[in-house]
Amino acid sequence: MFEPLSLGLSKRVRKLQQKREREATGLFVAEGPGAVVAAVKNGELEFVIVGEDVVGPVRGLAEHASGYGITVYEATSTAIEQLSESRTPQGILGIARRPQFELAQVVDKSSSLVVVLEEARDPGNVGTIIRTADAAGADAVVLAGESVDPFNAKAVRSSAGSVFNIPVVTDVSTSAVVDHLGSLSIKTVATSLTGDTDLYDSEFLHSLQDPVAWFFGNEAHGLSKEVEAALNQRVLLPIYGQAESLNLAISTGICLYTTLQARS
Amino acid sequence: MFEPLSLGLSKRVRKLQQKREREATGLFVAEGPGAVVAAVKNGELEFVIVGEDVVGPVRGLAEHASGYGITVYEATSTAIEQLSESRTPQGILGIARRPQFELAQVVDKSSSLVVVLEEARDPGNVGTIIRTADAAGADAVVLAGESVDPFNAKAVRSSAGSVFNIPVVTDVSTSAVVDHLGSLSIKTVATSLTGDTDLYDSEFLHSLQDPVAWFFGNEAHGLSKEVEAALNQRVLLPIYGQAESLNLAISTGICLYTTLQARS
Repeated sequence: MFEPLSLGLSKRVRKLQQKREREATGLFVAEGPGAVVAAVKNGELEFVIVGEDVVGPVRGLAEHASGYGITVYEATSTAIEQLSESRTPQGILGIARRPQFELAQVVDKSSSLVVVLEEARDPGNVGTIIRTADAAGADAVVLAGESVDPFNAKAVRSSAGSVFNIPVVTDVSTSAVVDHLGSLSIKTVATSLTGDTDLYDSEFLHSLQDPVAWFFGNEAHGLSKEVEAALNQRVLLPIYGQAESLNLAISTGICLYTTLQARS
Repeated sequence: MFEPLSLGLSKRVRKLQQKREREATGLFVAEGPGAVVAAVKNGELEFVIVGEDVVGPVRGLAEHASGYGITVYEATSTAIEQLSESRTPQGILGIARRPQFELAQVVDKSSSLVVVLEEARDPGNVGTIIRTADAAGADAVVLAGESVDPFNAKAVRSSAGSVFNIPVVTDVSTSAVVDHLGSLSIKTVATSLTGDTDLYDSEFLHSLQDPVAWFFGNEAHGLSKEVEAALNQRVLLPIYGQAESLNLAISTGICLYTTLQARS
């Protein structure tokens, strides 16, 4: 019922493991049932590859995609493993179109919650932050500077489908982002070890009712000093134990949900 | 100045990649400078292995450990790569004693914030949660049921040294944990998609002033129904966007920091 996967197409899909190839083709691989469901829902799916030995709900998902007019190719489990970048392939891959957004298109006068990551390098972190920003109902995630590609297989997997739900802006300099947010009067805030205000300061919490963009820096060295200085406010995310800092994605989750609590 | 690493010792260290061997010997591998510093600080270090080509601060760290009377072995970079479970070995490994804690020893009448994970399987998540619990000043992390070993290399790395800072209890059944917390009148709470109270409900936030133990379930299927039903309260962690749920470690971060904010 499904078409067999040709060697030529298999090679083309394999090439999508490279960032350059994803950018040149505008395609990327969404691995696993969750990502494929999200891609179908968002109409971004180009074609599907399913393991010939796959049964049950995953096969049902391939049939569902086929019912939507999407071509489904069948491959051996060995071929699926070769195409998969996950250690535990789940028998289904979606080849999807990469959504493209310009900053001004998704961050405008109506935006109330924006996440900006400067030079984030860990794809797992970036995917988790995209998922968290989606859950928090943020307007967009902006990956400024030399950040990791959000359509990298691990980032897509960590996003659990959210890469299809929330606009992710790439290829923009941090200073252009700061300027754009300034022109919209969206308050820019970062957590900082040398912050002058506590995250839970009542006046600061009150100020979170207004539109805000939260900035987070690189996993190892944080935000650059120039960017930190250019923002409206630097707050201290309190550490009560012996840990030196929090994981980047955890900090993002706490700041976004603190914002939502302040607005609730 | 350092001793050469013998083949026999190298083999013994390599075996520590297996959980069974870690349990039999009470030892585990702390990879990278951060983990080695934390192990030195906590007096848990058995010996150190450093790359012979390593220079700068990492070599300084090996010399520092040596100054404390800890034996330092030198190995080729190839040997370091073979012993390392990280894709980016950082030239130094500490072989550390596994801290052991009994539940009743670390969760008692004086405890005010406890994290309980039931059947957590992802070592990256478990390490990040240990780091977050440490940052939040929690009293202990309890890994109940068949959870992943917190002394697995990836969990140790994700904990960024916190595995040495906060007591982690393993090998205990979830029901024993619920009973123990009940006997201490520590309130037991879980997030649940079918929660009856919102996390940000003002009465609930007020109740967080009292000692609380936060329960989180397995990444894929959450807490078991029986455990969920046995807890004092189930709260809804609100989702404002299209994401179906939050990552386990992110949920933990939000709940712990919401507790701290309620107490501040």
